[in-house]
Amino acid sequence: MALRFALTAGEPAGIGPDLSLLLTQQAQSHVLICIANLNMLAERAKALNLSVELINVSPANWPSEPAQAGQLYVWDTPLAAPVEPGQLDTRNGPYVLDTLTRACQGCQNGDFAGMITAPVHKGVINDAGIAFSGHTEFLAEQTNTAQVVMLLATEGLRVGLVTTHLPLRAVADAITPNTLSDVARILDHDLKTKFGIAAPRILVCGLNPHAGESGHLGREEIEVIEPTLAKLREEGLNLIGPLPADTLFTPKYLEHADAVLAMYHDQGLTVLKYLGFGRAVNVTLGLPIIRTSVDHGTALDLAGTGKIDDGSLKVALHTAYHMAQSQRRHA
Amino acid sequence: MALRFALTAGEPAGIGPDLSLLLTQQAQSHVLICIANLNMLAERAKALNLSVELINVSPANWPSEPAQAGQLYVWDTPLAAPVEPGQLDTRNGPYVLDTLTRACQGCQNGDFAGMITAPVHKGVINDAGIAFSGHTEFLAEQTNTAQVVMLLATEGLRVGLVTTHLPLRAVADAITPNTLSDVARILDHDLKTKFGIAAPRILVCGLNPHAGESGHLGREEIEVIEPTLAKLREEGLNLIGPLPADTLFTPKYLEHADAVLAMYHDQGLTVLKYLGFGRAVNVTLGLPIIRTSVDHGTALDLAGTGKIDDGSLKVALHTAYHMAQSQRRHA
Repeated sequence: MALRFALTAGEPAGIGPDLSLLLTQQAQSHVLICIANLNMLAERAKALNLSVELINVSPANWPSEPAQAGQLYVWDTPLAAPVEPGQLDTRNGPYVLDTLTRACQGCQNGDFAGMITAPVHKGVINDAGIAFSGHTEFLAEQTNTAQVVMLLATEGLRVGLVTTHLPLRAVADAITPNTLSDVARILDHDLKTKFGIAAPRILVCGLNPHAGESGHLGREEIEVIEPTLAKLREEGLNLIGPLPADTLFTPKYLEHADAVLAMYHDQGLTVLKYLGFGRAVNVTLGLPIIRTSVDHGTALDLAGTGKIDDGSLKVALHTAYHMAQSQRRHA
Repeated sequence: MALRFALTAGEPAGIGPDLSLLLTQQAQSHVLICIANLNMLAERAKALNLSVELINVSPANWPSEPAQAGQLYVWDTPLAAPVEPGQLDTRNGPYVLDTLTRACQGCQNGDFAGMITAPVHKGVINDAGIAFSGHTEFLAEQTNTAQVVMLLATEGLRVGLVTTHLPLRAVADAITPNTLSDVARILDHDLKTKFGIAAPRILVCGLNPHAGESGHLGREEIEVIEPTLAKLREEGLNLIGPLPADTLFTPKYLEHADAVLAMYHDQGLTVLKYLGFGRAVNVTLGLPIIRTSVDHGTALDLAGTGKIDDGSLKVALHTAYHMAQSQRRHA
């Protein structure tokens, strides 16, 4: 059965509109609604020399069939100022948030089975006078979610992070029993409910090199990580570790795992980005809705040029589709 | 021209002797002298059901031709106690150091063009009453070297580390202008002199996620790393960065680089071990001698079983051979 999804085209001066338009090169398997300004998309299609039929839709007249090749369903959203590809304009900051609000509320009220986000530009939204620290935090606030988990995924590997965008010197103190427990439980729960994995097997990295080497290279494994994992195992979580990160990311371990839980950004994401270059997806776990995202930025210099790779957006779409179907089977 | 190299068989109860014996399945391209106890090797060969001719050699009678398949040159080194595979014995701690001393002195006096080390067991040497924190530190002390650099390499990727075996919470403070400069200079120098790379191009990781994102995620890039790299560039080093580690480890960057300089262990080694699983080599740069090593431990439980993979030792041998030849061409 075809489901309905929202795609937010993100920063209008970036490559989000271009990526949305490129999707029309193929027929869609679900009803995908692009939330963006329709005229801006029309102009961008012209700049890209793409022939696209933009079909104006809204909650009053959702289409029932997936778009054919050459078609894009658009929930037209008003801009405050004309868009020049590559040129940020603070006047359009509120527009970007409007598209996100429409998508998020639609996911909450059942209009959408999930949302996929193209990149936004944090700086221009903040310069517009709106405090905004990213999609993830915005959606957590909109849905009253206290703790979310950033999961990056590519073919054959999923990596969840206990800490994300922290200075390296702040990482060790941020790994507390509470945070580690919350993140591990959300990862386990969402792998079951949103990825259809009945008994997720999760490899957990140590914090220190060689996972502390019995305390010789740091004591956080002994004092924080091991006791926390022991308690979580009593709750039924299948956690393997803490393992040395440079041993864990080898086929011997990864072949038998559903996800890796890394303690911090560069520990978890270097292998993932190496492996999934251009084909990785960013998933926010812990939300009451399904949200996936491309793993790259707005690439302002490439907007309107056609020199872009839509690999990550396609993976983001397929991941959202797969998650929504798994969730339905699980419910 | 065939050169002469030393191979230290390492901990006698571990897989080092087994690995040394496995090498005899092929003829060698250089004169390789295994420094170990001859009787112990003979017993291990019997346990492995390997037919090997152990040829007793010493500085008084170095062989002139590389060994044929089935032969192993052995510089016989006395043990203090009989060896049982898998059973550590503190009495043989001094023997392990004797083999290292012979190899290191031989490299210094010109007997050997380089040394390759099989794994030792730090614990049993310390339990024997000898302070020993690893091959690298031992060789630095023997050769009066103040700063060495750990480089891990595999096909297509070399990663040098600014810090190595430190607790994660100590890393940020250990990245000083002096340490970073010393390490970068050694890496650049040895890539030229020992790897034959005329103008090494080195990618440098940031310390923080996204390389600090202009100071939003940590200030070490702005305050320490960038100014230090700027000074090193004035000395002629070709350093690119600091780059976000999860962007740097992608083909787009790696294709055009001779080495990566990572700030700490798990930042640099996760991708390297993923890529080079079982075929990685550990090289100590900054020494006045050439030294390569396997990238794994003693695997006590596998000694005498034959269930071992000599991939890393073969890469360690070939890397040492290649380095010695490059050094000769450079001199």
